[in-house]
Amino acid sequence: MGKRIGKQTVSLSAPPVLRSWAAVAGKKEGEGPLRGCFDQIAEDPYFGELSWEKAESRMLRICFSLACDKAGLPPSRLDYIFSGDLLNQCISSAFAMRDTAVPYFGTYGACSTMAESLSLGAMMLDGGFASNVCAVTGSHFCSAERQYRFPLEYGGVRAPTAQWTVTGAGAVILSRGGKGPRLTHITTGAITDAGITDANNMGAAMAPAAYATLTAHFADTGRSFADYDAVFTGDLGAVGHDILQSLLEKDGFDTGVKYMDCGMLIYDRKTQGVNSGGSGCGCCASVLAGHILPAMEKGSWKRVLFAATGALMSPTSAQQGESIPSICHALVIEREE
Amino acid sequence: MGKRIGKQTVSLSAPPVLRSWAAVAGKKEGEGPLRGCFDQIAEDPYFGELSWEKAESRMLRICFSLACDKAGLPPSRLDYIFSGDLLNQCISSAFAMRDTAVPYFGTYGACSTMAESLSLGAMMLDGGFASNVCAVTGSHFCSAERQYRFPLEYGGVRAPTAQWTVTGAGAVILSRGGKGPRLTHITTGAITDAGITDANNMGAAMAPAAYATLTAHFADTGRSFADYDAVFTGDLGAVGHDILQSLLEKDGFDTGVKYMDCGMLIYDRKTQGVNSGGSGCGCCASVLAGHILPAMEKGSWKRVLFAATGALMSPTSAQQGESIPSICHALVIEREE
Repeated sequence: MGKRIGKQTVSLSAPPVLRSWAAVAGKKEGEGPLRGCFDQIAEDPYFGELSWEKAESRMLRICFSLACDKAGLPPSRLDYIFSGDLLNQCISSAFAMRDTAVPYFGTYGACSTMAESLSLGAMMLDGGFASNVCAVTGSHFCSAERQYRFPLEYGGVRAPTAQWTVTGAGAVILSRGGKGPRLTHITTGAITDAGITDANNMGAAMAPAAYATLTAHFADTGRSFADYDAVFTGDLGAVGHDILQSLLEKDGFDTGVKYMDCGMLIYDRKTQGVNSGGSGCGCCASVLAGHILPAMEKGSWKRVLFAATGALMSPTSAQQGESIPSICHALVIEREE
Repeated sequence: MGKRIGKQTVSLSAPPVLRSWAAVAGKKEGEGPLRGCFDQIAEDPYFGELSWEKAESRMLRICFSLACDKAGLPPSRLDYIFSGDLLNQCISSAFAMRDTAVPYFGTYGACSTMAESLSLGAMMLDGGFASNVCAVTGSHFCSAERQYRFPLEYGGVRAPTAQWTVTGAGAVILSRGGKGPRLTHITTGAITDAGITDANNMGAAMAPAAYATLTAHFADTGRSFADYDAVFTGDLGAVGHDILQSLLEKDGFDTGVKYMDCGMLIYDRKTQGVNSGGSGCGCCASVLAGHILPAMEKGSWKRVLFAATGALMSPTSAQQGESIPSICHALVIEREE
C-alpha cells in the first residue's frame, strides 16, 4: 500500500525495482557526449522502414525488446505496458506494442511520458496489481519535424531558443522484487501555464512546471537539493534550465552543480547545432536508460531526482494563439546499498 | 491491495465507489433516445468559444465541474485527474484541466479512454495512493471531423459503415469510501489488430478487440453473460455489434438481449442519419454517466460489464496503408444492495 505524503507526492511501501533498461539512439545522438551510453545507435534514420512514423515505431519496438532481453523476461511475463509518444494519436507506441499481447495503457504526457509511465507502473506494482511492467517511449526528429513544424525538405531556419527533437527511445522494466535501483517516491505534477505562447521556446514554457513540481516535491518530502546526489529535468534545454535555476535560486535553493537537464546532456550544443538543446519523449527517456541508471549502478550517484517535463500543446492550439500548458512529474530513484 | 486473477484481470480489495458522475451532450445527442439523461445539453455547438477545439475543451471543463459539484468535492480535494481525448496531443483535456491545480495523468486510449482512466484511477485508490480521483473525457463531432476526415464545409458523403462522433463528455469521481456503485474488477486489454484497413469501418476493426477482452474477462473470472444484468461495449456501432455478437455466439456465449452498444443507444439510427451509430471518447463516457450509472441507481441493473473500445490509428497511419490496432478495457460495476 502506498502512502500519500503531502499534496502531490506518494511514497512507495515496497519500492519497485528498476530491473532492466535499454536506450536506443539516432546517429546524431550517437555522435554526442553520451555516444558510449546507448545500447544501440541507428545508422539508418529509417530503421529499415519506409516512413518516419514507422521508423519511430520500429525504434520503440527494438528498445522494448532490448529491455525485456536484459531483464530475462519475455513480454508474456509483463502484466502491463505503459507507453505513449508525441505523434498524433500516439501511433508509434500503439503500433510498436500491437503484437505483444500485453495489457496496454496508453499515456500522454508529451516529453514527460517516461516519468508518467513509470509513476503509473510503480503504483500498480506497489498496489499489488502487477509483478512486472514496462514503461517505454521515444521520439524521432524527422517525424516530429514533419508533424509539429515543417517538412524537412523545407529547410526552415530555427529560432535560437528552439530545441532539437531527440531521435531516441528508452524502456524500463519495473518489478516488485529483485535487484537494482528502486523507485521510492513519486511527485505528480499539475498542469502549469505561465502564459508563454512562443512554440519555439518550449524551455521557457516548461520551466515553471518544473519549478512547481520540484518545490512541491521538496515541500511534501521535507527534502532539498542537499538530499540528492543529482537532480535532472527532462528537456528544458539551456534556456529553460537557466530560467528554472534562477526561479529556484530566488527561493533560496542552492542548486549547485547537482542540477542538470537531459536536453543539455545529450548533445554538444557548441558543435551539434541544436540551439537550446534536446527535447522530445525520447530525450529524458534515453538519457535515463542510457546514462543516469547505468551511472547509478556504477556508483556515481546514490539518490537521484528525475523530473521529466512536457509541453501539452499542439500545432492547432499554437495556431489558435493559445499559451502552452506544461507539466512535470518527478521520481526519486535510489540505489540499493 | 489488489489481486490479480488471471492474465488480464484484477479484483479490487476495497472496490472504489463511483461517487458522482456527469454527462454533457450536444444538440443532436440531446435529440436522441437518451435525451432525458444528460445533465446538460448544449444548444450552442461552440459552447461559447471561437473554435471547435476550444468548444470541446470547454465542454470537458463543464462536465468536470458538474461532477465535482455533484460529489460536493472542490477540485482541491481530488488527488489525481485522469483525462485524454481524440485531438492531436490530447489538447482538449490538457486545456480543460490546466487551471485545476490537481496532479494530472494524461491518458490515450482513443474511444476507450473513459475505461482506461477509470481503471488507473481505481487501482490508485485501492492501492492507497489516493482518496478521490476524477476520470473525464469527451469528443466533439466538429473537431473530430476536421482533424480525422474533412472540414465540415466539404460536405463529404459518409460510408454506410461509418460512425458519427458523439459531441459529448462524461466525468466520474471515484472515491475510496462513500455510497454508490462500486468498481470491482478491471480487465485491461492488449492491443488487437485484425488487419482491417478501412478507416470508415471502425466497428469491424474494434470488434475483435472487444471479443478478446470479453473472453479474457470471462476466462479470468469464471463468469459469463449470465453473471451480468447488462453488458455494454463502447462504440462498435451496429456493424461492430453484429460482428462481436456472432464471434461470441460461435464460441457458445448466449449474449441474449443483455448485450448493448453505447454507440447504438445514443442515437436513433433510423431518423438521425448516423449510419452505423455513435463513436468517440464522448460516446461511452456520456452513456455511462448519463444512462448506465443512473439506471443502476434506479435499480434497473445490479451488475454491469462496461467494455469501452478504441481504435488506436491516426489519419497518418491510415494514409500509410496501415491496419487499425484496437483495444478494449472492461470494468465490472456493481450496485450496492
